[in-house]
Amino acid sequence: MNLFSPLLFPVRLENKKIIVLDETKLPFVEDYIEIDSLDKALWVLESMKTRSFGQVLIFFYSCVMFSDSFPLDYITDEFVRRRPTFDFPKLSNILRGGLKEGKNLEEVVNEFIERFDLLRKKRAKELAKILPLSANILTICNVNGELIYLYQALKECGKEAVFFISETRPYLQGTRLTFWELSRNSIPCKLLCDNQVAYLLLKGEINCIVSGADRANLRGDIINKIGTYALARLAKYFRIPLYVFTCYPSDIDIKNIIIEERPEEEVFMFIPKKQIFIDSIYPSFDIVEAEYITKKLEISKYQ
Amino acid sequence: MNLFSPLLFPVRLENKKIIVLDETKLPFVEDYIEIDSLDKALWVLESMKTRSFGQVLIFFYSCVMFSDSFPLDYITDEFVRRRPTFDFPKLSNILRGGLKEGKNLEEVVNEFIERFDLLRKKRAKELAKILPLSANILTICNVNGELIYLYQALKECGKEAVFFISETRPYLQGTRLTFWELSRNSIPCKLLCDNQVAYLLLKGEINCIVSGADRANLRGDIINKIGTYALARLAKYFRIPLYVFTCYPSDIDIKNIIIEERPEEEVFMFIPKKQIFIDSIYPSFDIVEAEYITKKLEISKYQ
Repeated sequence: MNLFSPLLFPVRLENKKIIVLDETKLPFVEDYIEIDSLDKALWVLESMKTRSFGQVLIFFYSCVMFSDSFPLDYITDEFVRRRPTFDFPKLSNILRGGLKEGKNLEEVVNEFIERFDLLRKKRAKELAKILPLSANILTICNVNGELIYLYQALKECGKEAVFFISETRPYLQGTRLTFWELSRNSIPCKLLCDNQVAYLLLKGEINCIVSGADRANLRGDIINKIGTYALARLAKYFRIPLYVFTCYPSDIDIKNIIIEERPEEEVFMFIPKKQIFIDSIYPSFDIVEAEYITKKLEISKYQ
Repeated sequence: MNLFSPLLFPVRLENKKIIVLDETKLPFVEDYIEIDSLDKALWVLESMKTRSFGQVLIFFYSCVMFSDSFPLDYITDEFVRRRPTFDFPKLSNILRGGLKEGKNLEEVVNEFIERFDLLRKKRAKELAKILPLSANILTICNVNGELIYLYQALKECGKEAVFFISETRPYLQGTRLTFWELSRNSIPCKLLCDNQVAYLLLKGEINCIVSGADRANLRGDIINKIGTYALARLAKYFRIPLYVFTCYPSDIDIKNIIIEERPEEEVFMFIPKKQIFIDSIYPSFDIVEAEYITKKLEISKYQ
């Protein structure tokens, strides 16, 4: 099998420019944005042209590209201002650690990415061993190609899998990213609306849930896309295991992390003439406490 | 206060034609469809141009208009074929009851509608008495203007209210119908995505839930728009009361009612170029057992 998703590496550094896959145009157009200034990098971040692992990459490459002009602390603060829920200070510490060892920023970043990809594959293999022989996997939002690694690992264990993808309103990352990357690799998958999840769980059509996480702490709590908390509560009730791919955990009480409130207009994305609406609510992340999570697959645990 | 929603009477009989408010075009255009054949009535039903109380009205008026050409049983069966979860046989029995009393169909229907509207107002008043002084009401889908009666009744009791409207994917009845009818009457309301409901409940921002029901049985179970079951489960966990406006209950085990599966394309409504997607799941109703419901406001209990 030779499976691939452009979302595995949604941001690249090429000829002194940061090249970003514009995820907001997916799945209709596979378009790339060139970044040659910090301002533009911050705009790309804020407007969610890239997210999740793309946020790691755009931050790292911005540090590589613009740390001659701006201090690392300044770049970090500006990134945090745009997307407060994501742990950019942690990433900044990783860079500083590398610098202390005498490497330059580009070396640190390249080593990080290479190792990260290796570890993603390892944890996909570990999860594949645990999942049922015929896995009906519910997922939410998008984990940047890791479900493709998971599917490959499942097949290598002789297991079957179907992915049930919750569309993930309002940005529809489930529909636009996960459904797109799985179906273009001919991986069996079905799309559903977020409010149909409980029905599938009740009917016994799902035997495991796999999600990513935007933040994790040492206690095992995570923060992930809005909708994840409801999913976790329902999963616990129906005794369906919830597996979460997490990154480097922070030593912080999860309740002290700022939950980003995004612009109201986004609630009306994909609805024509959205300007007639004015009042909505839009918290964009959910906190999920450790007790709801069957197993965290913490990336740094894979060496 | 003089509040009104066209959804209170979405279907009318005028000059020997059935006039149907096209709910699929709301909130952008207030357009009406003229029906002069049973075929067209069935098409309007199947394509969800009208729903909920509109289904009652289009069925009744079709019987008035077309029972010279088709037996009542035939009309009823054809309606059931289009939307199997709705209780058309019950409506048919109501008509038969009136005929037995010597009334003609049009009289029976007109009396039914007049009485139904009176009872809707009465139950809104009863619910208003129970709700908190400052009611933060979560709602799903659309209950054909009854929230307007509820708001009016709340104000008459000297109570305040804000409605939090779950958008209700995939058809977005919450956004397109409920948000529209409340905001055009300047009733305080906020829209949210279905997957954000648990977050609001967790934060304590909701103190009651009000929904309608497509079906109800004598035990107190209901069937309503997909998403209602998840809402009910979460409400129970967070101890938030759930009030349901129900119609005439059937003497049936709720599990024996057919849950309509609607066309997959509808999952992709409001997403451009939907034709690139092929595989989705779309159960369109949820069963909610009696134990999740704090109080059913059954229309026939109001005399």
